[in-house]
Amino acid sequence: MHKRLSWILTLVLVCIITSYAQDKPCPTASKFGPDDQIGNVNYITPAKTLAATKLVTTGKAYRLAIETNKDTPAYPPRTFAVTIVQPSQTAGGSLGPTKTTYNDDLIVGWAGVGTQLDGLGHIGIDGLYYNCNKAADFAMTDGLKKLGVEHVPAIATRGVLLDMAGYFNTDIVKEGTAFNRAEIEGAMKRQGIKSIEKGDVVLFYTGWLKLLGKDNKRFGSVAPGLGRDGAKFLASLEVAIIGSDTWSFEVIPFEKGAGVFEVHQILIPLNGIHILENVNTEEMVRDQAWEFLFTLGAARITGGVQSIVNPIAIK
Amino acid sequence: MHKRLSWILTLVLVCIITSYAQDKPCPTASKFGPDDQIGNVNYITPAKTLAATKLVTTGKAYRLAIETNKDTPAYPPRTFAVTIVQPSQTAGGSLGPTKTTYNDDLIVGWAGVGTQLDGLGHIGIDGLYYNCNKAADFAMTDGLKKLGVEHVPAIATRGVLLDMAGYFNTDIVKEGTAFNRAEIEGAMKRQGIKSIEKGDVVLFYTGWLKLLGKDNKRFGSVAPGLGRDGAKFLASLEVAIIGSDTWSFEVIPFEKGAGVFEVHQILIPLNGIHILENVNTEEMVRDQAWEFLFTLGAARITGGVQSIVNPIAIK
Amino acid sequence: MHKRLSWILTLVLVCIITSYAQDKPCPTASKFGPDDQIGNVNYITPAKTLAATKLVTTGKAYRLAIETNKDTPAYPPRTFAVTIVQPSQTAGGSLGPTKTTYNDDLIVGWAGVGTQLDGLGHIGIDGLYYNCNKAADFAMTDGLKKLGVEHVPAIATRGVLLDMAGYFNTDIVKEGTAFNRAEIEGAMKRQGIKSIEKGDVVLFYTGWLKLLGKDNKRFGSVAPGLGRDGAKFLASLEVAIIGSDTWSFEVIPFEKGAGVFEVHQILIPLNGIHILENVNTEEMVRDQAWEFLFTLGAARITGGVQSIVNPIAIK
Amino acid sequence: MHKRLSWILTLVLVCIITSYAQDKPCPTASKFGPDDQIGNVNYITPAKTLAATKLVTTGKAYRLAIETNKDTPAYPPRTFAVTIVQPSQTAGGSLGPTKTTYNDDLIVGWAGVGTQLDGLGHIGIDGLYYNCNKAADFAMTDGLKKLGVEHVPAIATRGVLLDMAGYFNTDIVKEGTAFNRAEIEGAMKRQGIKSIEKGDVVLFYTGWLKLLGKDNKRFGSVAPGLGRDGAKFLASLEVAIIGSDTWSFEVIPFEKGAGVFEVHQILIPLNGIHILENVNTEEMVRDQAWEFLFTLGAARITGGVQSIVNPIAIK
Repeated sequence: MHKRLSWILTLVLVCIITSYAQDKPCPTASKFGPDDQIGNVNYITPAKTLAATKLVTTGKAYRLAIETNKDTPAYPPRTFAVTIVQPSQTAGGSLGPTKTTYNDDLIVGWAGVGTQLDGLGHIGIDGLYYNCNKAADFAMTDGLKKLGVEHVPAIATRGVLLDMAGYFNTDIVKEGTAFNRAEIEGAMKRQGIKSIEKGDVVLFYTGWLKLLGKDNKRFGSVAPGLGRDGAKFLASLEVAIIGSDTWSFEVIPFEKGAGVFEVHQILIPLNGIHILENVNTEEMVRDQAWEFLFTLGAARITGGVQSIVNPIAIK
Repeated sequence: MHKRLSWILTLVLVCIITSYAQDKPCPTASKFGPDDQIGNVNYITPAKTLAATKLVTTGKAYRLAIETNKDTPAYPPRTFAVTIVQPSQTAGGSLGPTKTTYNDDLIVGWAGVGTQLDGLGHIGIDGLYYNCNKAADFAMTDGLKKLGVEHVPAIATRGVLLDMAGYFNTDIVKEGTAFNRAEIEGAMKRQGIKSIEKGDVVLFYTGWLKLLGKDNKRFGSVAPGLGRDGAKFLASLEVAIIGSDTWSFEVIPFEKGAGVFEVHQILIPLNGIHILENVNTEEMVRDQAWEFLFTLGAARITGGVQSIVNPIAIK
Repeated sequence: MHKRLSWILTLVLVCIITSYAQDKPCPTASKFGPDDQIGNVNYITPAKTLAATKLVTTGKAYRLAIETNKDTPAYPPRTFAVTIVQPSQTAGGSLGPTKTTYNDDLIVGWAGVGTQLDGLGHIGIDGLYYNCNKAADFAMTDGLKKLGVEHVPAIATRGVLLDMAGYFNTDIVKEGTAFNRAEIEGAMKRQGIKSIEKGDVVLFYTGWLKLLGKDNKRFGSVAPGLGRDGAKFLASLEVAIIGSDTWSFEVIPFEKGAGVFEVHQILIPLNGIHILENVNTEEMVRDQAWEFLFTLGAARITGGVQSIVNPIAIK
Repeated sequence: MHKRLSWILTLVLVCIITSYAQDKPCPTASKFGPDDQIGNVNYITPAKTLAATKLVTTGKAYRLAIETNKDTPAYPPRTFAVTIVQPSQTAGGSLGPTKTTYNDDLIVGWAGVGTQLDGLGHIGIDGLYYNCNKAADFAMTDGLKKLGVEHVPAIATRGVLLDMAGYFNTDIVKEGTAFNRAEIEGAMKRQGIKSIEKGDVVLFYTGWLKLLGKDNKRFGSVAPGLGRDGAKFLASLEVAIIGSDTWSFEVIPFEKGAGVFEVHQILIPLNGIHILENVNTEEMVRDQAWEFLFTLGAARITGGVQSIVNPIAIK
């Protein structure tokens, strides 16, 4: 089907690329220079981190991950399984005089199951990835040679939580609801959030995770989420990372006229902004924890595309 | 070999267990009650977290993980590999009008490769695990039914870094060097650290990671590390987590008369203290970042034993 | 539950083992000597093979495997998945002047999914496996050190197909129907099979595979199959391998008073007879191909327990 | 590098494709019709099989596979590992009154490690595979939708073994030695093989497996093997399958002017001839077993590209 793209659309894309090309080497060039692999995460300076720690008032720490297992709904053909083994202890054996026994675990699964960070090597535009990297040059079968998750630095910055369910006065925001500039600013106003700033992490709460385990089919096929103009708006504010409590992050069905995961394209390759999916902010909403210290350490799997993560928010 | 344990040793163990058994239901019973699955992490209260955020003075955030890949030395038979795929894009295809392309990654590996958190289900004493849990009751092949890493809450607490290389006035502390009460207190005094407190995370720096990639054989077969009395001393201080920059965490060769990974036994099943391995604190030592805010979010893999992690320290 | 075994049963087992022990070193000792790892497959001599080739009259070759994939019902927690990759061809690339492209496949799954050979290292009696091998001595986490499937020699011998559905005059033999000496001899008589001989492969047809994909729950939870006396009878005839068209091979629910997979125990550890499961003989029954040349080459995975196979029968 | 192909070579390819295109729908069209997925294996009729069984004179059966494990040299990034587990038997447990214990095995590896069958979906020409199938249409990440190994029928046919080491009067034929028509006919003459016939399996013996485990670097980087004209010659004889005792099957370094794995292209997509690699015929050469019954049953992994196999030859 994607082969039958009309030449008109191709032409439009070529025009976009051409217009971009006038002032930078390629449409995905980084403003941080040709060697950059981390995008807007560069904005998280010690000064930014220090300021973010001042947002902590109660000391309550929130675990933002959902669980990852074989039943976690995920984008096909992603699967996940853990196998527990007891090496060297066959038939009830143990090790040494204090009879040490142990369990180990073998993971077989896709890094895109559960709460996940989309690295800058995840999404491209016709093979062109962040900072002018072409898939054929870095996306090797045994690991990305650039843009892998091992490059993501320590994340500790200001987090802002937008309660879209509250904004729409509902428990679960309806699928297909796009969050664009008006909705973002409306939610900020309602919550008394004065600004979204350079280097921030912005999280959307939609209530969508309430469907998990109850209606996995609906949960995993559609979602409310960020729209194209909302993505461009947040990109203009130079945020570092944007997350949501849905599997798709962006609105599905896609907005009228939008490409397939075009919001991902706007953020990741075109603006160097990482994405977080399935971020569980339910308890934070209950506590009205709107501005907070956000920390994230992604397992440094060399050449990894995505990462199963568990961000920690501290209010 | 472990089958040929003399009955004397068994008798000793039985005696130990019996003596323990006098005042609690089993030697691994939790002081936090029969339902507890997280041990001393319970000590990390909002008040504790709030106080820890006050330790931040420069805002510099440290990424404490090493990289995990097929070449990372690991305890046999642990292995690790990542495979990059481009689903639905065979032969250069893309998706939709904006020609979306993407990489995904399939992980096949053991959770004990690289920087790792040892969950409370990792180590036992002859099949008896933390809080009186018996392996046969919870260590199922498709995932732990108790003590899995998905239960670990948000970690944000005071971190203390002990510079053992500095204490021993060397670059790399020699293998077999045990850190017991004298060495711990000596290092604290040298660094001006007044106390180790309930709910703290204590990290040892030995310089051992300098061997990684240079002498993997030495790196992965022996190490300096915590001794039995040091473990009991830190347990008496009720710390939450203890980590080191070695693969084994504890001293190897084991101390004279010690069991196989007996320090692990003292901490995990007997005291509910999590362990961190291969924690890279090189840069923190250079900055003399001795007391700091320590945060950790372990991927919530249901029933997982260990977790590949990337703790974030903020000074 | 298995911990609550009454001491009476244990006593009975001890008695059995003791009685066996009078004339051989252990109840699972091989009649082919202490180094034997292949059991009755030893009976397949060149003379036996040569005679079997004389059974070929039409030259029709039968593929006896069912397909193995993620939907194939299997004994929990067994799973299976294949992932197709195009290494070095990201974004539509190809290799060299003749533009070579290629697909590769990564298998992640248990060897006990689909048509499978149970190796002699698969089943034991309280940790005692074929030929006096104890699990603790050979069942290492990274592969069996004895009794692995890599030792199975080329199999080419006489095959005999017993049409139990025909014998019971039904399409699908009812679950729980045990095949013992009377049923085996009855089926032989009905089909005009004069003898079952040393080194033969005996296959049972029950029609059970007709349920596959139609009623997987029934298919994978119960089955008709060999009973204990039938197993002992065939063992007394010194057959090499016995197979069936069910997942369990033996009758389930187990016969009254029988142990869990006790028929497997009678055949594998006690008699050195390999087992085949999910062997599709539907077409052979239609052709009344009762006696034939049976060939089997199991992939030689070092230290493997079972093997996904595809035996070839030639009539 | 492959991106820098000169337009001349592309033009040549276009010309070849164009000339092919005059009499069939595409250069890889099957002579067995548009639905064909098995190529020359179609030539293996019952009559052919029956005739092949007449070649058996001694009844000696040969196991032609080498072992597959983590140390088996394989084309990068292929890897292989087996993990042994004892489900439901943690801490020495067993099942039921007869104390059943069991081992299971989890396979994680590429199907192209060890003795392997290259399915017709393995190799293409710029994305065009056997019988006009385009990669984008059938090579899905979760399994091939056409040309998968599950379609390969029972193989039982005449096998012919060409002793190239004998022909070159050496133990191990030197790398880069191409087997073309002259060498094939020379070896046949030397061995007294009168003909190679439609539906035959032809195996080359080079002695190359003598290097396995002794000089894996040489073993896995170069090899003697079939050349382009030899491939075309055997294709003209309408053989079903061709195999060798090397990892690459074809000669490496490639012949002067040859494409990357062009011999694979000539056989698989252009002629529907399956390939076997790492076929161990050492013992057959010792026995001078030149013409024999060849049988092969490949595990029927749905959508699999290659298959780890163990062909059985009977003389």
